[in-house]
Amino acid sequence: MLTLIKGGTLVDDTREYRGDVLIEREKIIKTAACIDAAVADRVIDASGLLVMPGGIDVHTHFNIDTGTDVSCDDFYSGTRAAACGGTTTIVDHMGFGPAGCNLHHQLEKYHRDARGQAVIDYSFHGVIQHVDEAILDELYSMVHMEGISSFKFYLTYQYHLSDGDILRLLERLKEVGALATVHPENDAVIAHNRRRFIAENKRAPIWHALSRPVACEAEAIARSINLAQLAGNAPLYIVHLSNGLGMEYIKLAKARGQPVWMETCPQYLLLDIGHYQQEDALKYILSPPLRPHTELDSLWSGINDGSIDTVATDHCTFPYSLRQARAASDFTRCPNGLPGVENRLALLFSEGVAKGRISASRFVALTSANPARLFGLWPNKGSLLSGSDADLVLFDPQRRQVIRHSDLHDNADYSPWEGFKCHGWPVMTLSRGETVWRDGIFCGKAGHGRFIHRKPFLSKHPGVNK
Amino acid sequence: MLTLIKGGTLVDDTREYRGDVLIEREKIIKTAACIDAAVADRVIDASGLLVMPGGIDVHTHFNIDTGTDVSCDDFYSGTRAAACGGTTTIVDHMGFGPAGCNLHHQLEKYHRDARGQAVIDYSFHGVIQHVDEAILDELYSMVHMEGISSFKFYLTYQYHLSDGDILRLLERLKEVGALATVHPENDAVIAHNRRRFIAENKRAPIWHALSRPVACEAEAIARSINLAQLAGNAPLYIVHLSNGLGMEYIKLAKARGQPVWMETCPQYLLLDIGHYQQEDALKYILSPPLRPHTELDSLWSGINDGSIDTVATDHCTFPYSLRQARAASDFTRCPNGLPGVENRLALLFSEGVAKGRISASRFVALTSANPARLFGLWPNKGSLLSGSDADLVLFDPQRRQVIRHSDLHDNADYSPWEGFKCHGWPVMTLSRGETVWRDGIFCGKAGHGRFIHRKPFLSKHPGVNK
Amino acid sequence: MLTLIKGGTLVDDTREYRGDVLIEREKIIKTAACIDAAVADRVIDASGLLVMPGGIDVHTHFNIDTGTDVSCDDFYSGTRAAACGGTTTIVDHMGFGPAGCNLHHQLEKYHRDARGQAVIDYSFHGVIQHVDEAILDELYSMVHMEGISSFKFYLTYQYHLSDGDILRLLERLKEVGALATVHPENDAVIAHNRRRFIAENKRAPIWHALSRPVACEAEAIARSINLAQLAGNAPLYIVHLSNGLGMEYIKLAKARGQPVWMETCPQYLLLDIGHYQQEDALKYILSPPLRPHTELDSLWSGINDGSIDTVATDHCTFPYSLRQARAASDFTRCPNGLPGVENRLALLFSEGVAKGRISASRFVALTSANPARLFGLWPNKGSLLSGSDADLVLFDPQRRQVIRHSDLHDNADYSPWEGFKCHGWPVMTLSRGETVWRDGIFCGKAGHGRFIHRKPFLSKHPGVNK
Amino acid sequence: MLTLIKGGTLVDDTREYRGDVLIEREKIIKTAACIDAAVADRVIDASGLLVMPGGIDVHTHFNIDTGTDVSCDDFYSGTRAAACGGTTTIVDHMGFGPAGCNLHHQLEKYHRDARGQAVIDYSFHGVIQHVDEAILDELYSMVHMEGISSFKFYLTYQYHLSDGDILRLLERLKEVGALATVHPENDAVIAHNRRRFIAENKRAPIWHALSRPVACEAEAIARSINLAQLAGNAPLYIVHLSNGLGMEYIKLAKARGQPVWMETCPQYLLLDIGHYQQEDALKYILSPPLRPHTELDSLWSGINDGSIDTVATDHCTFPYSLRQARAASDFTRCPNGLPGVENRLALLFSEGVAKGRISASRFVALTSANPARLFGLWPNKGSLLSGSDADLVLFDPQRRQVIRHSDLHDNADYSPWEGFKCHGWPVMTLSRGETVWRDGIFCGKAGHGRFIHRKPFLSKHPGVNK
Repeated sequence: MLTLIKGGTLVDDTREYRGDVLIEREKIIKTAACIDAAVADRVIDASGLLVMPGGIDVHTHFNIDTGTDVSCDDFYSGTRAAACGGTTTIVDHMGFGPAGCNLHHQLEKYHRDARGQAVIDYSFHGVIQHVDEAILDELYSMVHMEGISSFKFYLTYQYHLSDGDILRLLERLKEVGALATVHPENDAVIAHNRRRFIAENKRAPIWHALSRPVACEAEAIARSINLAQLAGNAPLYIVHLSNGLGMEYIKLAKARGQPVWMETCPQYLLLDIGHYQQEDALKYILSPPLRPHTELDSLWSGINDGSIDTVATDHCTFPYSLRQARAASDFTRCPNGLPGVENRLALLFSEGVAKGRISASRFVALTSANPARLFGLWPNKGSLLSGSDADLVLFDPQRRQVIRHSDLHDNADYSPWEGFKCHGWPVMTLSRGETVWRDGIFCGKAGHGRFIHRKPFLSKHPGVNK
Repeated sequence: MLTLIKGGTLVDDTREYRGDVLIEREKIIKTAACIDAAVADRVIDASGLLVMPGGIDVHTHFNIDTGTDVSCDDFYSGTRAAACGGTTTIVDHMGFGPAGCNLHHQLEKYHRDARGQAVIDYSFHGVIQHVDEAILDELYSMVHMEGISSFKFYLTYQYHLSDGDILRLLERLKEVGALATVHPENDAVIAHNRRRFIAENKRAPIWHALSRPVACEAEAIARSINLAQLAGNAPLYIVHLSNGLGMEYIKLAKARGQPVWMETCPQYLLLDIGHYQQEDALKYILSPPLRPHTELDSLWSGINDGSIDTVATDHCTFPYSLRQARAASDFTRCPNGLPGVENRLALLFSEGVAKGRISASRFVALTSANPARLFGLWPNKGSLLSGSDADLVLFDPQRRQVIRHSDLHDNADYSPWEGFKCHGWPVMTLSRGETVWRDGIFCGKAGHGRFIHRKPFLSKHPGVNK
Repeated sequence: MLTLIKGGTLVDDTREYRGDVLIEREKIIKTAACIDAAVADRVIDASGLLVMPGGIDVHTHFNIDTGTDVSCDDFYSGTRAAACGGTTTIVDHMGFGPAGCNLHHQLEKYHRDARGQAVIDYSFHGVIQHVDEAILDELYSMVHMEGISSFKFYLTYQYHLSDGDILRLLERLKEVGALATVHPENDAVIAHNRRRFIAENKRAPIWHALSRPVACEAEAIARSINLAQLAGNAPLYIVHLSNGLGMEYIKLAKARGQPVWMETCPQYLLLDIGHYQQEDALKYILSPPLRPHTELDSLWSGINDGSIDTVATDHCTFPYSLRQARAASDFTRCPNGLPGVENRLALLFSEGVAKGRISASRFVALTSANPARLFGLWPNKGSLLSGSDADLVLFDPQRRQVIRHSDLHDNADYSPWEGFKCHGWPVMTLSRGETVWRDGIFCGKAGHGRFIHRKPFLSKHPGVNK
Repeated sequence: MLTLIKGGTLVDDTREYRGDVLIEREKIIKTAACIDAAVADRVIDASGLLVMPGGIDVHTHFNIDTGTDVSCDDFYSGTRAAACGGTTTIVDHMGFGPAGCNLHHQLEKYHRDARGQAVIDYSFHGVIQHVDEAILDELYSMVHMEGISSFKFYLTYQYHLSDGDILRLLERLKEVGALATVHPENDAVIAHNRRRFIAENKRAPIWHALSRPVACEAEAIARSINLAQLAGNAPLYIVHLSNGLGMEYIKLAKARGQPVWMETCPQYLLLDIGHYQQEDALKYILSPPLRPHTELDSLWSGINDGSIDTVATDHCTFPYSLRQARAASDFTRCPNGLPGVENRLALLFSEGVAKGRISASRFVALTSANPARLFGLWPNKGSLLSGSDADLVLFDPQRRQVIRHSDLHDNADYSPWEGFKCHGWPVMTLSRGETVWRDGIFCGKAGHGRFIHRKPFLSKHPGVNK
């Protein structure tokens, strides 16, 4: 069975050119300026469309259990929404388990959760809830036997690590060939502010944002990158960057040749702190919080000049109804996180490519190729090379579409993007050669998605593209 | 006759506080947290409003004669539009006269043009069309007897100066206490590109923009600031900055302590090069041209971080009908310039203050106090000090208003801002104590405006505010 | 009794000009281009000399008790050495007392130590060994009754504070009008490295430096400035900066308008890590340690471009004999610190002014006026204004002098500057009008120096000069 | 004939490792951690030595005819000196010929000058004295038939080009695959200053430096890089950078992805403007001139952080006796240029590597590999790969040596480096397998050196190393 995608513009992270793609079963077997339609069993007309590696979203939280709530997107609804938005791979976080549990405990749970459910391919990040010799000893087998080559630690929440533990962890991660990722917010600052705000009866949603200001995140970023440098230049990936000062810190490290990378999310590029003054403010509670508009400008400069390496979503769904029930009178009780896995590509394309801030190739780098290179997926994923998986999105760069939650495919009861006008839209998604989204219809199957055994992080410079 | 403005929030370039303003005839005589209404003959209720120094627009071209056309706003219609937008002072450019004419020739012409026409106060910038000993000798009397303490030169158009002439000019301007201003675009580059484009029959409006790219302006900026440094650190003011690279050059000079300042305009902050692809592209022809969106992002970072010192309009009106008649098939024949003197405050407030990029004080610095300090108007203008002219704007920070050219007060037949949604609007303007704009009604009088004899530029550091 | 200093070049932090200084008793009463010698009882010929405000060294540790050792310069020998080097005021650190002691306990001890001993004027910085309500409550009276308006905290050593305590402290210090100063090194990093090095039997002096690398200091700097920002923009002064990355962090904060300042010391500008490979390496043990040469280059760029605000010495004397006895085989046992209070002016002048990196005015800003402005001493100290104390240094900018410890006036048994060739030398020092150093002879008296009751730190911007 | 270099530390531009090098006739045929000595006919003991690709000096002027004088080093003495300093390839400038002469005219002259004379391999840069269609048409054959793939133009001297001509030239150079190099100084500024200084009778050597200040060079750099950008991103190489502001401009261009590179020279890193105050100031006249010390600091930061790509010498010898005869009373009559081809490696190693500012690999990148990559010589030159020419230098990193002109091998009568103390010294040089310098003895032969037909400049990013 040979499928030919004909007449489109091929875009990968280094170039953009008119060309055709030939697929045999699960793989791309050829790309060329012109491939004869006669060779194919099926021809897909891609005239006027961009043909790009499918999106890779390396920051999702399906089924996450916060202790009080479980997020309402599971591996079926979550990956279905992803597929309908042009995303063909997700890497989810294996957290949080019971206090003291080991890494394999969570791995087994997540394999159970995802198996038979996912409609696109997936992998997991480890989550480090505590550091001791047993955990450090597990890392080697996680990387080399289980295919889990990235691990996240937190600087806030009950599982935040001390500086000494972070050093030990980072040294070991480097040693075993894993990439560390970090959620950077200073826990003491948040605790200090929350205490005061509660005492002063400041419990409206805006105080959520004011309890975790820019400097709270920037401090934790500087700490993380310096600890990574001190741990022998351990590779480090900063998740969900939301502020310009932290970005400047990371740029200084990059300029000194340190192996450090940064991710941001559409919500930090496009939604500002003003949303916490709206009536439906609870819809936007997440951490780090939405920021003043000037931070958005700064992040766009990083998207434009190559400082930012990836755009992910941090998709984590707690219904608005639940938020209202919990936190109508106290922001500290609101579960954190936004849904969004379905709209990442359309949002970044509209505001980035259509507005002239970035090229289509840079768009692919941010949404697919760089995540693949950093997280041990490349070149199977994130590439148009012969031999790569036929994970593709066909994207109409001219289509105008307004986002409505009623059209989306997650389990949320709202979208933070309701009413947003997009310029550019994914019209077809293929996962290993199978069509999972076409003409507005989801046509994937639970269980089609496979667990990806990721490669170790061996290189100091995986060569992400700007 | 005592007028009291009561209950507003006073904003100048250093602070913002609840307070009242007492005016006697043309002057502010007192500001205080609370002034008893009983002392006043008239009380203006400013509850919910910002009370700020009236806008100062130091970049307009009324009545300009380009050789082929005369712009269609004169000192009456131009200052009327300014007043209705909250601007109480303009500084216009005295150019261009017949080749070889001296500075006093143009000064007399402009005095004739403005006298009896202007509805708000005004002054002029000299324009240097050529350099010789006679011109250099005129400068002292222009500054010290005529009150003209700033002079503009061009790096493009037929009047562009050579590097050697610029050095001589800048040395003399510094000596006599004048501020040099410069239109920076490289003339040879534009000629080179135009020649090619015409030869290739590329005459649509987009080629206007492509013939004067970012580097064409950035080069001229670097040249200007280095020549100023070489001329003994002569003070220099860059007009209508439209790109981020040039801004970086100026920041490097500022960081070295060089007396150099920069102005941008609302069109460079808010309109992008995409407009030249629209059907009505000719409406947007100006020089430097509109830029890719990433330059807009860069300029906003300069507005936010204090790098940019002023926002002016470069108001210069040629009707759309004329543009179409002239240039439908050849961009090189289109007269350059945009109208806009009436909307500067509302635009910058909406996108700057209301969107959380800048404070109200920084808004006043950019639109009023800094121009006053740089151009010898302070503290008569641009200030709320006792003794300052009662040039004030009462601004409603919450008012939503859509710009329609049919509501504006210039002589143009279109507005580049048609349909733009503002958040914040000037509701009342006072010029030396007289109400010239209130409740949507222009109530000024031709001839109320006086020529302002400006002070020399004596100080290396006029202390503009960030 | 009127003294006239005649024929010199007067230099303060803003300008340099030929002029004379007239002194009546303890005060400068007049400066002018030419003052008639007939008015004076005594005339000092300053031809060919620079006449500058005496040096102010805001970082010394006389009599410091580390728990195991007491530094061997007391307030007599320490201030004597200072005076012979052109320094007329020192601010010493009141630390460390017994665990849990309050601030007044240490103040009394230091008053006892200094009274009757000091040959020039002096004050003290408070040192915060722990944070609790009692300490926080003491701060107001320390500032407003005792005249102690700056307090230091540490991020390493046994007295390092937690992030939460730092927030509480900084908020209170801002409230009471005090300047916080911080020793920034990450304690967990040092502990981690020391543990490893000791386990690997790496105990030579070079391991001292390698246990506290650049990133260990840079991290702590970023943390401090962000915590200060989070504490309501509390003013913060970084002591003994030794690296370029930390400097970049501070520059980013300054560019955002944060009230933060930085100090470096001659040893960080002129001595590099290579000294730990020398046989007499123990002479150079201090914290932060000496750095690779490229950090020295970075600090010089900060001296040149105005980023660094002050140069102090961190004078802290432990004899070489003691160091050898203690630490010949284990760097962790070596007492930390270098002597140097006597050579600060000559060193910075030689390498800064004589080598063309900075002007003489910038030299005065760094060594005298900026410390005075930041620490509540100005304009009594650090100034040539009429009414200021007649604390002056007469400096020969052409004199060549080689530093020999045998010529110095401290109680050390070596100098880290032995053999250094200076270009420029202090030839006379006056303390409140009294000559304390002239023609190579110390002529001061124990007890002449008075405690200075310093002013609160009220202003956000004390207006230090670049 | 097989030669084995045994026991050394191999250093190329990416790494440093213990290893042996096997040479067969002119080529390296193998490098490995250990090669058995038995295979070789000759074994060179490199214990304790660094074995590196021989130096490549891409900026020399042998036999240059300025119109009034001919420089006194020819291709024999010049290349002999180079060889004795560890340099194995030079690229000389073919200028200046009679006004109006074409490029081939000069090429023939230079072939005649060099043939049979050079002791090491050599090539030439074209020099563009004027721009017309004939010259533009010659470029293709110069590159593709003659092997000349780089061309220099000047912004000062009688041959400086106008902006329009530069655009035409750069477009063509890019088209034919050549690298443009530029001498950036603003001619109008120099003329302006010289006129004034002569009128004021300021003719001492210091006025040479003051007539061409930092901004004179920085302006020309900004102009060059922007014109290159405007010419379709034509690749550009800035020669003999001497100031920090110009470096910042180039860094901004690099950060935007522009193909631009920069060279500096030892004299700009190590000698400052103070030399023009010495009695023998005429020895140091060159353009751009020596700079204030703070510029030296800036250039070192560029050497350290990777901003600067190459270090060359601009070797150009006019004897001190000639300088005195000509210019004792008028700096404008002094021939410009310094000798130095022999000491480049020792100087940069001593101040760069031995002082801890750069690694040995970065040293190789700056002095050999980057010049090879940029100028079409790699990997024959500048590399230790099998198949590369056996152009090698054996360098003793510990040897201390004082430079004395009496020991050097050029035709000058002085050295600007007289008395300079080096730490590190070249002890043996091989040119295509032949020993040309060993144990302080020159043992090369005139005529051994061959003309190198260089490759076109095809790639936008030749991938120089930091």
